[in-house]
Amino acid sequence: MHRERFYTLAASCPDQVGIIARITGFFAEHRGWILESSFHSDGEAGRYFMRIEVRADSLPFGIDVLRQKFAPVAESLAMHWKLTDSTQKKRVVVLVSKQEHCLYDLLARWQSRELDIEIPCVISNHETFRGFVEWHGIPFHHVPVTPDNKVAAYRTVTELFDAAHADTMVLARYMQILPPELCAAYPGQILNIHHSFLPSFVGAKPYHQAYQRGVKLIGATCHYVTADLDQGPIIEQDVIRIDHSDSVDDMVRYGKDIEKAVLARGLRYHLEDRVLTHGNKTVVFR
Amino acid sequence: MHRERFYTLAASCPDQVGIIARITGFFAEHRGWILESSFHSDGEAGRYFMRIEVRADSLPFGIDVLRQKFAPVAESLAMHWKLTDSTQKKRVVVLVSKQEHCLYDLLARWQSRELDIEIPCVISNHETFRGFVEWHGIPFHHVPVTPDNKVAAYRTVTELFDAAHADTMVLARYMQILPPELCAAYPGQILNIHHSFLPSFVGAKPYHQAYQRGVKLIGATCHYVTADLDQGPIIEQDVIRIDHSDSVDDMVRYGKDIEKAVLARGLRYHLEDRVLTHGNKTVVFR
Amino acid sequence: MHRERFYTLAASCPDQVGIIARITGFFAEHRGWILESSFHSDGEAGRYFMRIEVRADSLPFGIDVLRQKFAPVAESLAMHWKLTDSTQKKRVVVLVSKQEHCLYDLLARWQSRELDIEIPCVISNHETFRGFVEWHGIPFHHVPVTPDNKVAAYRTVTELFDAAHADTMVLARYMQILPPELCAAYPGQILNIHHSFLPSFVGAKPYHQAYQRGVKLIGATCHYVTADLDQGPIIEQDVIRIDHSDSVDDMVRYGKDIEKAVLARGLRYHLEDRVLTHGNKTVVFR
Amino acid sequence: MHRERFYTLAASCPDQVGIIARITGFFAEHRGWILESSFHSDGEAGRYFMRIEVRADSLPFGIDVLRQKFAPVAESLAMHWKLTDSTQKKRVVVLVSKQEHCLYDLLARWQSRELDIEIPCVISNHETFRGFVEWHGIPFHHVPVTPDNKVAAYRTVTELFDAAHADTMVLARYMQILPPELCAAYPGQILNIHHSFLPSFVGAKPYHQAYQRGVKLIGATCHYVTADLDQGPIIEQDVIRIDHSDSVDDMVRYGKDIEKAVLARGLRYHLEDRVLTHGNKTVVFR
Repeated sequence: MHRERFYTLAASCPDQVGIIARITGFFAEHRGWILESSFHSDGEAGRYFMRIEVRADSLPFGIDVLRQKFAPVAESLAMHWKLTDSTQKKRVVVLVSKQEHCLYDLLARWQSRELDIEIPCVISNHETFRGFVEWHGIPFHHVPVTPDNKVAAYRTVTELFDAAHADTMVLARYMQILPPELCAAYPGQILNIHHSFLPSFVGAKPYHQAYQRGVKLIGATCHYVTADLDQGPIIEQDVIRIDHSDSVDDMVRYGKDIEKAVLARGLRYHLEDRVLTHGNKTVVFR
Repeated sequence: MHRERFYTLAASCPDQVGIIARITGFFAEHRGWILESSFHSDGEAGRYFMRIEVRADSLPFGIDVLRQKFAPVAESLAMHWKLTDSTQKKRVVVLVSKQEHCLYDLLARWQSRELDIEIPCVISNHETFRGFVEWHGIPFHHVPVTPDNKVAAYRTVTELFDAAHADTMVLARYMQILPPELCAAYPGQILNIHHSFLPSFVGAKPYHQAYQRGVKLIGATCHYVTADLDQGPIIEQDVIRIDHSDSVDDMVRYGKDIEKAVLARGLRYHLEDRVLTHGNKTVVFR
Repeated sequence: MHRERFYTLAASCPDQVGIIARITGFFAEHRGWILESSFHSDGEAGRYFMRIEVRADSLPFGIDVLRQKFAPVAESLAMHWKLTDSTQKKRVVVLVSKQEHCLYDLLARWQSRELDIEIPCVISNHETFRGFVEWHGIPFHHVPVTPDNKVAAYRTVTELFDAAHADTMVLARYMQILPPELCAAYPGQILNIHHSFLPSFVGAKPYHQAYQRGVKLIGATCHYVTADLDQGPIIEQDVIRIDHSDSVDDMVRYGKDIEKAVLARGLRYHLEDRVLTHGNKTVVFR
Repeated sequence: MHRERFYTLAASCPDQVGIIARITGFFAEHRGWILESSFHSDGEAGRYFMRIEVRADSLPFGIDVLRQKFAPVAESLAMHWKLTDSTQKKRVVVLVSKQEHCLYDLLARWQSRELDIEIPCVISNHETFRGFVEWHGIPFHHVPVTPDNKVAAYRTVTELFDAAHADTMVLARYMQILPPELCAAYPGQILNIHHSFLPSFVGAKPYHQAYQRGVKLIGATCHYVTADLDQGPIIEQDVIRIDHSDSVDDMVRYGKDIEKAVLARGLRYHLEDRVLTHGNKTVVFR
């Protein structure tokens, strides 16, 4: 990410001749200085994807006027588009359970402003991390989840998320399955870290499954949450080598390092508007 | 591998106190110089695995006498064991189809004696590589496989393998499914390279499956062939990063590099008696 | 790489507002269909880099007319540029010594047309691979190099390269140091694979140096050859894990796998005009 | 690491026939159950290295008697040896400066008992992390270091380390060079994480050096501190891929992830007595 203020256009549209020329011609006309630009043509789907960063101070107007002026161009290309301001911090609600590694990792990045976001609150089904979170000056909400109170619990989670005016929900090893309606209500806004290299070892206890199968690498997957468990669009994955001497406990320990790294990378791509979804797949302009 | 002649003991037995002391005491008694030794206790299975290299010239007798003298020790520990001589080259029959990458890679390693083996013959269901193989001075057998001649074809393959007094059969992207009886007849002797990170994408066209799922890494798996397709004990795996811009053709191309590397490593472990199987899993003493 | 015929523009110019718009506007004006496009702004150097693939059949003229029409645009931007035709095969002369791995690997890729190039000849200071190369139908030239005949030997190499109308010279573990004048005569055209993760272990016997230092990873580097030994612009690098049990011989063996993979990737980037140099650094549009 | 209490023998001695038999024979005689054992013969140095874990409750005596009984065996082999008890927590003093990533990472592992250690105190030349450290219940000492007070400052650091009865000092991106006398006083007890893949980019600002050289991977190195800056025995290393679009700031950010992972792995190997030094190299029994 750049130090200067910039606007990011993330967009897709049906493929045709001249798209880049139209878009970059528009910016050039207003003397917009392009810092970074990425383009991808999906031949199979006939769809074009792009991401462009323009220096804010190179344009003679602000983001609202930019949006107005760009709208007709976008419309003429039948474009899905989003235009964001790098000084407008994203608001990320973090959900955790009892495992510490992703939470510590995210708060370390937030504390050092490596992740330049607001965390309006952390929500957990356990009290474990109240003190740690509150010490950072971040509100902590304990929302217990039991087989009996699921509807009410997730209504509370939704209310907290909405009240926080949040953009993104991160399941940082939350260990609970969100109800389908909640998943459907925030498409492309909820990120999960799954502790396997999907599509291997869907569902519960993936390290046990990996141990039983005798694989030589284990992994983690950051994906958008959809109503289908562990089936959402994959944003980022990685693996680590194990061998016969590693127990399930060892795998859990190694896995933590991969999980937090993959979640941090996937979240960063998402927050910088580098991820465009397309059916059940993603374009990630790293 | 060492330059000096050495004998390799690869063995497993029920776990109990004093196994290493018994085995290494036996060698010490005969002034055997241990070059390399590896041990693994599988607590869940209650089984002990080991691999020991002893310098041949440190012992006052040859491998036959060694086997005789060691037999009672092994018997007293209810051991499964194998004792091999590093100067006795393994005999490896290679099966290929029309893809070149694993074949070129194996012959390069054989030509430079990095793989210090005999290749008594190459068998293929196509004529494609006859010239290349024969130029290396290795006999080439064309055994076409059609839906109608499968029984006869694999009878021929089996006869060629047996007539070659071979130890190991390598399916170097052979692209045909061996009949269950053949798999069962040579347990732990047939190695396959599968072009996915198993257990993901079993069966046909794994790169197409990977493309559809939108994974961010693709892989390859070297495993022993059993009657269950792509379900045998895994010896070695690896992955390579891809992204949204990679087509299925790109994946196929990247995949070749992983396939040949994983096959070469898995085959080496196998040939150096570093792989001990145990149910559907392997212990690999790298 | 795409199946359709396409033209590739690889270029750089001083940075300013509107470059992409100018370039893509030019192609849009002629109904040119952009298959792939990459842009990079080097803020420190104030220089802009780009690579664009345009479908040949989308343009109403051939590459010669395209060059004529594009020249004024390029001139107005003070651009260094190159425009190539995907059906015009690059001509690559390979230099080898006595090690087989890179040679086998390159010829396997050439044989399967994964590398869609011409290899007008292989040059070696040893006879070792004459038969192997000639079996592939490729001319082989033995040019011995001794302390006394260096000037004459490299005059011969230069003559063979020029007579072959070659674009690129690949030192596939050639193990000889080219004279500075030869390096200077073909800037950005000679690729070497060095068997260390540069800048560590410059010069002779890098695996011995790595062994002495006790590093935990070893690597390889593909770079353009310049008059300064092992100091040219780096195109691609990779590493592999080793441990205390690995001897120098083991490192040499592992290293071969990294060397051939890194050379193959670096060469592919080069051949597809994905590498733009800039001082002693490269932009690689993978 | 195992759940059961165990004793760990880490040792080295001149190589000769029968070492393993002597050592394991000793344990077998006392019915000691070996959980894990690793051996390495360094042929060049003529030295033998080993690490053995024995279940505490399998022996008929405690660690003090074990030490007494083992001493004559060790002496007869001219062995350097150490025998530790898994229930005796190591005491680790952490030194930090103003960067958060390694500190957060270590405290997360400590908090979850993944690292089952005592942290008697954290020492820093800045006040930055006082609140964070103290919230965890760990004493925090601010020891400013200026060009004028170095002698006094490091006398204080030494006193704090000794007063804490600490085993290990970790420089978790401490950013100060320890005086040679301090390094010499605690050989094999002080671990540093250097933010480059040593031996490349010794000294200050390695990411700037890496940027200037145009490398395609950056790395980190965990090593024992000696009086020679960045020259001590290497315990663990790793790398991450970068490309031309990454600025020095991007490298710093990616580097943090590698630094904390490499430090955590290196520290774990050290704490589990898996690292034996040997001249300027290490044997690491992972």
